[in-house]
Amino acid sequence: MKATAKAHTNIALIKYWGKRDEQLFLPTNSSLSVTLDKFYTETSVHFSPDFHADRFILNDQQADPKEMEKITTFLDRIRNLSGKSLYATIDSKNYVPTAAGFASSASGFAALAAAATKAIGLDVDYRQLSQIARQGSGSASRSIYGGYVEWQKGEKADGSDCYALPIISEQDWDIRVLSVEVTTKAKKVLSREGMKRTVETSPFYSGWLEAVEKDLITARDAIKEKDFEKLGHVVEANALKMHATTLGANPPFMYWQSATVEVMQEVEELRAAGIEAYFTIDAGPNVKVLCQPKDEHAVRDKLSLLTVVREIHHCRPGPGITYLPIEK
Amino acid sequence: MKATAKAHTNIALIKYWGKRDEQLFLPTNSSLSVTLDKFYTETSVHFSPDFHADRFILNDQQADPKEMEKITTFLDRIRNLSGKSLYATIDSKNYVPTAAGFASSASGFAALAAAATKAIGLDVDYRQLSQIARQGSGSASRSIYGGYVEWQKGEKADGSDCYALPIISEQDWDIRVLSVEVTTKAKKVLSREGMKRTVETSPFYSGWLEAVEKDLITARDAIKEKDFEKLGHVVEANALKMHATTLGANPPFMYWQSATVEVMQEVEELRAAGIEAYFTIDAGPNVKVLCQPKDEHAVRDKLSLLTVVREIHHCRPGPGITYLPIEK
Repeated sequence: MKATAKAHTNIALIKYWGKRDEQLFLPTNSSLSVTLDKFYTETSVHFSPDFHADRFILNDQQADPKEMEKITTFLDRIRNLSGKSLYATIDSKNYVPTAAGFASSASGFAALAAAATKAIGLDVDYRQLSQIARQGSGSASRSIYGGYVEWQKGEKADGSDCYALPIISEQDWDIRVLSVEVTTKAKKVLSREGMKRTVETSPFYSGWLEAVEKDLITARDAIKEKDFEKLGHVVEANALKMHATTLGANPPFMYWQSATVEVMQEVEELRAAGIEAYFTIDAGPNVKVLCQPKDEHAVRDKLSLLTVVREIHHCRPGPGITYLPIEK
Repeated sequence: MKATAKAHTNIALIKYWGKRDEQLFLPTNSSLSVTLDKFYTETSVHFSPDFHADRFILNDQQADPKEMEKITTFLDRIRNLSGKSLYATIDSKNYVPTAAGFASSASGFAALAAAATKAIGLDVDYRQLSQIARQGSGSASRSIYGGYVEWQKGEKADGSDCYALPIISEQDWDIRVLSVEVTTKAKKVLSREGMKRTVETSPFYSGWLEAVEKDLITARDAIKEKDFEKLGHVVEANALKMHATTLGANPPFMYWQSATVEVMQEVEELRAAGIEAYFTIDAGPNVKVLCQPKDEHAVRDKLSLLTVVREIHHCRPGPGITYLPIEK
């Protein structure tokens, strides 16, 4: 009863921002992402009647009690589905630079969902896997698939129509995502907390919900048409809108720092100089810059001149989950 | 038929952001400001049957045709009110550092309204003066009064209930406003244009209108109670909300630059260190920092360490319009 799976992280092009159900991780809006080739998690799960408790080893370290509780809750769902009450030992390795502001929880829960369901003998398809992964971390629902992925918010209270689906695969359209790590000062508001405060207090939240539906349709069309300019504009505008909602929260908060804005301004200057580059920003100070393969070096060269830039990671659209023949 | 008047500029504590009537300068929301002692305009107006056209000398320079047209339109309203069709020569001096992002149009049209009505022999009270000034520049309606001022949006289509009123005078409550000029890169979107684009395209505009009414009540109460902390928090939150609306416009735009955010972060750090400082930002990259007299030097010392800060002007609550005995 062992299995090993690998899942890649993803970057939201149309943002997931707000939950309608905190327990089931049901979002208030649909979102859209591209899975990235560079950052991933590999997880081995072993269920056995010999174990007397769940164990979770992350990057060769025993998890702390809070992490352990989350993992156990997640495994309980899988145990319930399978009808088997066995404890598990999980060995997970994260190849995700957490400083770059990537949510390792996306690749983490996608890999765990895949490995755990296989190890316990559940026969699930990708859609079901997406639903299971979602209940560990919302964005994990998208990391089941490679390439360009849409996470449908669904309407039902039980979440049965809330899962991700692929739009086109990573082979279908090559773009580049430069992950720009900047030097930072302030502590961040956790995305889970920030989302909650925004939903509950921001006067802009209803405007966000109205706008994001339209943005998602535009982005999906742009991906199907492989229209980079169209995609870039809507991705950037959608990120700005997500961040605008936090400025209206009570108390207000902001994920941007001066370094963030410096990179944003530089991207604007690149466009003014005729190079098609667009930014997106998650719940943190770092910036991801989208460009076409032909412009990748020009974009990197310009951005690396900024003193506030600490590191640039080059990413491409990456694959969905894969099962590995041996446990790690 | 000569008169000279002086009016001070003001900084909005609760922002004017959007017009419901472009011609009459009727706003979509009420706003609140403090008139500042440091920056002002002095304007002399001379009406005479000997003149064959309006003339406008600003800072010893003949105005360009576009400015001239605005001034003539403004004078036409005053000529209509008085029933006299006389041309005017206007001599105006602006003591407002335009680079600091202060709208010299506020003090400019307030001084012009006061001098022109007096020169032409119109007997107007401050409320009427506020309405006249408003039709040159919205924020000029507030510069008629000293101290803390509220501009009531009114409801009527003809603007007859749309004017400013004083809350408390400049003598009643001493606070400090540090105007922080930062080094800038990009060109700015004019506030008139930015406002219009936001009203027409931003999904956050209805949320703004809903929030600003509440913020104004909180700010008015804080001023009456002389509760600096209460005022500071709502002023900062209101400015953030105004700027959030621009991020949702189509196309999106932003008045902040990296230097702006650096000052904002520094103000946050001052507060974390126990010094009560709060920022507000108008339609440009510069920042105004509110503090109490006792903290003025500590705030200045901290902010002046930032390399992005070019100059800091120290302001206090200032007086309303005054008529000067001789023309300048």
